[in-house]
This record gives sequence, C-alpha cells and structure tokens, in this order.
Amino acid sequence: MNAVLEKLDRVIEERRRAAKPEASYVASLEAKGLEGMLRKLSEESTETLLAAKQAEADPGQLPALISETADLWFHSLVLLSRLGGNSNDVLDELARRFDVSGLDEKASRNPVE
Amino acid sequence: MNAVLEKLDRVIEERRRAAKPEASYVASLEAKGLEGMLRKLSEESTETLLAAKQAEADPGQLPALISETADLWFHSLVLLSRLGGNSNDVLDELARRFDVSGLDEKASRNPVE
Amino acid sequence: MNAVLEKLDRVIEERRRAAKPEASYVASLEAKGLEGMLRKLSEESTETLLAAKQAEADPGQLPALISETADLWFHSLVLLSRLGGNSNDVLDELARRFDVSGLDEKASRNPVE
Amino acid sequence: MNAVLEKLDRVIEERRRAAKPEASYVASLEAKGLEGMLRKLSEESTETLLAAKQAEADPGQLPALISETADLWFHSLVLLSRLGGNSNDVLDELARRFDVSGLDEKASRNPVE
Repeated sequence: MNAVLEKLDRVIEERRRAAKPEASYVASLEAKGLEGMLRKLSEESTETLLAAKQAEADPGQLPALISETADLWFHSLVLLSRLGGNSNDVLDELARRFDVSGLDEKASRNPVE
Repeated sequence: MNAVLEKLDRVIEERRRAAKPEASYVASLEAKGLEGMLRKLSEESTETLLAAKQAEADPGQLPALISETADLWFHSLVLLSRLGGNSNDVLDELARRFDVSGLDEKASRNPVE
Repeated sequence: MNAVLEKLDRVIEERRRAAKPEASYVASLEAKGLEGMLRKLSEESTETLLAAKQAEADPGQLPALISETADLWFHSLVLLSRLGGNSNDVLDELARRFDVSGLDEKASRNPVE
Repeated sequence: MNAVLEKLDRVIEERRRAAKPEASYVASLEAKGLEGMLRKLSEESTETLLAAKQAEADPGQLPALISETADLWFHSLVLLSRLGGNSNDVLDELARRFDVSGLDEKASRNPVE
C-alpha cells in the first residue's frame, strides 16, 4: 500500500464515475471508452521512449522522463480502474514476483526473480 | 515512499551493477543497453493493451492485465534506474500533479487537473 | 498494382496456408494467431522508430531504417492477409486519398489531401 | 517501381519542402520535426492494431483496417522522405528479401525467406 497511489486510485475511481466528460480529464477518458484509454497508454509509452532517448543524450532531461513515466503509470491506473483493478494489485504482483514485500524479514529470504 | 517500490528500486540498482549479464534478468537488460530496455518497454505496453482487450471481453482475465501492468512498471523502473531516476521521483510527480500527497491535509486542498 | 507487392501477397497467402509452422516464417506467424501478428507489428513499429533516431544522428544508418520499414510493411501485409485484405487494397486507398492513381491524367486533376 | 507509391513519394517530397506548415498535412508534419513524425507512426501502429482486433471480431470492419494500414504506410513514407529514402527503397528491400522481383524469371528462382 502506498499513500500516493491509493489516493490516486480513489481520485480516478471518483472522477471516472462523474457524470460529465468535461468535469475532469479522467471523466473525458472514461467517456472515450476502453479504446480511447488504450490509445493514450500507447501514446505515453512512445513519449516515455522518446524522453528516454533525450535523457540519454542530455542528463538534464531526466525530469521530462520522470514526467512521462508518471503519465504512463497514471494512464495504466485509469485502465485498471475501468477493468476492476488498482495500484495495490500491481504492487502486490511486484512484491510477489521480486519477493520485495513491505516486510524486511520476508525480503531478506530467498530473493528470486 | 512505498516499501515495495523502494525495495524494487534497490534490487534493480544492485542487479544492474552486477558484472555478469547471466546473473539476473535485470543484468541482462543492462547488458542490452538503453535500446534493449526501450524495446522491452514497448513490448510490455503492447502486452498491456492486448491483456486489456482480453479483460474487457472476459473479466476473469483481470489477473493477466495486472501482471502485464506490473511488467510495464517494472521495465519503466529499470529504464529510470539506468538514467538516474527511481520510483520515488514518479510518486512525487504523481503527488504533485494530482495533489494527492501522503498527507491528508494536503490532499483535501485544491484538488486539480 | 505493383509486381513486387502482388507477388509478396501471393507468397504470404501460400505460406500462411502451409500446414506446418516450421515450414516458413509466415507459417510460424500464422500458427501464433492474430495476437502474435499484432505483437510483431508493434515490435517492428518500435524498431522503425529506433532506426529513424539512429538515421537522424548518422545518415549512414539509412539502410537499417529502410530494412525496418520493409519489416513493418511485410508484417502489416501478413496481418491483412489473415483478415482478408492485401497490398492492392492499401494502394487503392492511398491512391484514392491522395488522388495519385496510376493514370497520369487523373493524378494531374485536382490533387487533394 | 509502383506508380501509386512513386507519385506519393513525389507528393510527400514536394509538400515537405513547402514553406508553410498550414499548406498541407505533410508540411505540418515536417514542421513538427522527426519526433512529431515518430509520434504519428506509433499512433498509426496502435490504430492498426485496434482495427485488426475489430476486423477479427467483425469482418465488416476490414475497410477500417485497410484505411489504418494506408495511414501507417503513408507516415512511414513521410519519415523515410525526411531521412533520404523512398518507397522504391522499401520495395527493393522486400523484393531482395523475398526474391519476389518484378521479373517472373527471377521470382521463380530459389525462393527464400
């Protein structure tokens, strides 16, 4: 559980359920349906790729890469929200996969990948 | 700060610095360089898109979507690690952008977007 | 109609219908189904993007960009073949859209876009 | 050589060199530079993928897939034009790779892939 992500999940959920597309960016995504969300996810993936190339050439561009990565995570959370998941599901999966649970004791046992 | 993501950052950082590509998956990505990482990021974005279409048709496929989203986040953290960033930078950016900091007081102030 | 593309359509069609996936690369794509083809299309799109960045930095890399573009066109023809289309459909659409038919007379009339 | 593609190359080349971005869609792409073209290429790749999923579910959607494939080819030609290539380079590469030259005699010799 992460405070920022948890609140973001809640904000996304609330705004998705808002009646009017013009009420917020999330509501406008919801109105565009799944395909609209998938277009945005792909777009942010490409933006992240381009920003990474820029940051490689010029380390001063790291903030732009961070910003695009935030966009990518955000749009993946909007997608998950629509289909019944949330950030906690992703964190649980990452913890399980890399054995990096929130508990130090567990993380020190048989690290795998 | 999130315990899972923070440990994941640390695991990625350590494994990237490991001498041998065969030591771990992260080390093998590091050996492939930035372009190899970008190929994987794009691949995971497409996998997420395809999994979302499946989960839309069959809600029982939600776990596969969660798994692909975890892959997408993981590969974006490997990329960030190589270029000098980490999960905390992403969470800070999300908190700043959506005004969903860890502090409840702040989150209740002027929600934006 | 283009001789190269027309023959390529025919080769793809024949190989897709070949019984054994190991018979050819096209047969192996057919065996992977639509999702396998879509993964390859996305992959080639990313390769084209990366090759374009390289060719921008070093004009000597133009052949690699041409090669990736050929991959992209080829995989889009495999996809079309599976779903009932071919290169001629694409050329007709391009001719119609840009009013650049094979007939000079027509091409010289009201060029649009 | 293909009459449609050849004319399209010429149209793209001329419009790219036009002084004003508002003169044509191609001129507006040129004004956006390489990164703008790469964004569009990625976008069209995603549109092709989504259209293929639709056409798989409903064969009546094949025209939309053809239209998206035309967009994908068109944007890859704009990209090539900017970096010094054209459709003929792509056709030559396809002919060489699949041994499907315009000459029947050659096409009947050692077909490879």
